[in-house]
Amino acid sequence: MFYVIGLGLCDEQDITLRGLEAVKSCTRVYLEAYTSILMVQKERLESLYGKSVILADRDMVETQSDEILRDADKENVCLLVVGDPLGATTHTDIIIRARELKVPVQVIHNASIMNAVSSCGLQLYNFGQTVSLVFFTETWKPESFYDRIKENVDLGLHTLVLLDIKVKEQSEENLARGRKIYEPPRYMSIPQAVSQLKEIEDIRQSGLLTPENTLAIGISRLGGGPEHEKLVAGTLAHLAAQPDELFGEPLHSLIVVGKRLHHIEVDYAGAFAVDQAEWRRVAQEVYGCNLD
Amino acid sequence: MFYVIGLGLCDEQDITLRGLEAVKSCTRVYLEAYTSILMVQKERLESLYGKSVILADRDMVETQSDEILRDADKENVCLLVVGDPLGATTHTDIIIRARELKVPVQVIHNASIMNAVSSCGLQLYNFGQTVSLVFFTETWKPESFYDRIKENVDLGLHTLVLLDIKVKEQSEENLARGRKIYEPPRYMSIPQAVSQLKEIEDIRQSGLLTPENTLAIGISRLGGGPEHEKLVAGTLAHLAAQPDELFGEPLHSLIVVGKRLHHIEVDYAGAFAVDQAEWRRVAQEVYGCNLD
Repeated sequence: MFYVIGLGLCDEQDITLRGLEAVKSCTRVYLEAYTSILMVQKERLESLYGKSVILADRDMVETQSDEILRDADKENVCLLVVGDPLGATTHTDIIIRARELKVPVQVIHNASIMNAVSSCGLQLYNFGQTVSLVFFTETWKPESFYDRIKENVDLGLHTLVLLDIKVKEQSEENLARGRKIYEPPRYMSIPQAVSQLKEIEDIRQSGLLTPENTLAIGISRLGGGPEHEKLVAGTLAHLAAQPDELFGEPLHSLIVVGKRLHHIEVDYAGAFAVDQAEWRRVAQEVYGCNLD
Repeated sequence: MFYVIGLGLCDEQDITLRGLEAVKSCTRVYLEAYTSILMVQKERLESLYGKSVILADRDMVETQSDEILRDADKENVCLLVVGDPLGATTHTDIIIRARELKVPVQVIHNASIMNAVSSCGLQLYNFGQTVSLVFFTETWKPESFYDRIKENVDLGLHTLVLLDIKVKEQSEENLARGRKIYEPPRYMSIPQAVSQLKEIEDIRQSGLLTPENTLAIGISRLGGGPEHEKLVAGTLAHLAAQPDELFGEPLHSLIVVGKRLHHIEVDYAGAFAVDQAEWRRVAQEVYGCNLD
C-alpha cells in the first residue's frame, strides 16, 4: 500500500491515530519538505515513529516517484505531507502514477490551512476560491491572483491568500551553472503580501483593495495552539503597518474579508483586531454589516 | 480550558494525538451528535478514551452551553465534533460564550468534508463557496442554494453540496404537542439531492444544471478508507439513475463540477465514473477540457 498521510499543521502531535498506525507499518517513510513546513524538525517525527524519515524535496517527488513507489505493491510505503495531502498542496501526480503501477493507494486526511482558516472566526461557507501569492521579482509580477480575489469580492466572499515559500531554491546563476547550491529558505510575510496586493491595485486602479476600507486578517502558525498561533485583524493599512516581528515565525497566510460579512464573524474576529473600534467602524460603514 | 476537538471523518482512529491527549485531560467529554455522525457508536470512543462520553444534542449545545462550560476555567472540558469543529458545522456561539465567561478556549482542528472533498480528484483551489441542501417539504423548498451554485458555475468553479441530515427531529404534531418523541434519523441520498436540484432547475429554467451535460460526483463515507469510501462520478442523469444502495450508508455529499476543469482532474476523477467514455466526452465537448 502507498499511504499519503496528512500531518496536520503544527508538529508531530497532529498526526491522527490512523495515520500513525499506517506510518508504523511502513518500510520507508518519506516527508514532503518543500511546499510547507512543520514547526519541528524531522528528528521529532523519527523519535515518535521509531524509524528514520527520508526528506523528499521537489526534485525527488516530481522526478523520482517510481523510486518512492518501489515495492509499494508488496510492502507499505508512505509519503507524509504537512497539512492535508490534497489540500493547499496536491499530490495527485504521484497518486496517478501509483495507479498506473497498480499500487493501491490510501489517503489519510488531516487539517489543512484550507479548512483550519476558520479559526479566524470567518465562516468557511463564506469563502470563495483560494489563491496563491508568489514572491514578485523585478521582472515577474503575475497578476492572476488579483482577478481571482476580484471574483470573490464581487460575490461578497472571503479569500484565503496562501503566501509563497521558497525552500531549497537555486539562484539564477547557480541554476545556470548547474551548481547545487541552495538559497536560504524564504517565507512571505504578511506586510510583504499586503504590499504586493497594493502594487497590483495601484496598476489596476479598480478600487478593489483600498488600504483604509478593506478588512483583512493575518494568520501565523495556525494549529499551534494559543502559545504559537497569532491572528491579527484590521484594515490592509493596519496590517501593512505592523512590524514583521509581530507576526513571528512562518508560516503566514492572509485573508481578504468579503462583504457578505455576518455580525458574528465581526464579533469573533474582532478579538484579534489591531484597533477594535476601527475594525467595527469599517465593518459597519463600508461593509454594511449591522452591528447594533 | 475548554477544548473544541475535531474527530475527523470516520471513526475513533481519526482523532489526532494532540486531540486524544486533550480528551484524556478532561473531566467531562461532550460529543456533538446532531450535525454529523461518525461511522461508529460512542462506546468505541469511550473505550479508547477510558472515560464516559456525554451525547450533546442540539438543544444541549444551543441552550445549555453554560452547563457544558461549567468549571472549565478550573478544569478541562471538551466538546468533540465530527470532522472539524469550525468546518461544515460551526461552533462559534459556544466559543464566544466561553470568552464571555473568561474560559480559555483551544480549537484542535482535523480533516473536514470541506477539505477532504479533494479525495475526488478535483483541486480545492477550483472550488467556490460551499452550499447546504436541506430536505424539501411540500411547503418549504428554499432555493438560495441554487443561486450560490450559479455564482460558482458562472466563474467555472466546483461546488461542494452538503446534504441534509435530520437527527432527533420531532414531527410537527409532536412538536406542537410538546411530546419529546423523535423521528428516526434521515440522511439525504445522492439521487434525492440530484432530484431536488432538478426540481429547482425546472422552475428556474436557466440551463445551469442539465441532466446530460452537467458533471457531478457523489461521495459517500469519505475518510473511511478504501473499504468504506465510495465515489461515483458521472452526469447528473447518471447519478440520478443509480440505486440508493450503490451509495450505501451515510454520510453523503455531492459535487457539481465547474467548467474550470483541468485534464488531470478529469483523469483522476474518471476512475470513479459510472461511464468513463461519457465522462470524458462531456468533459471535452461540453466543458471544453483538452484531453488529447
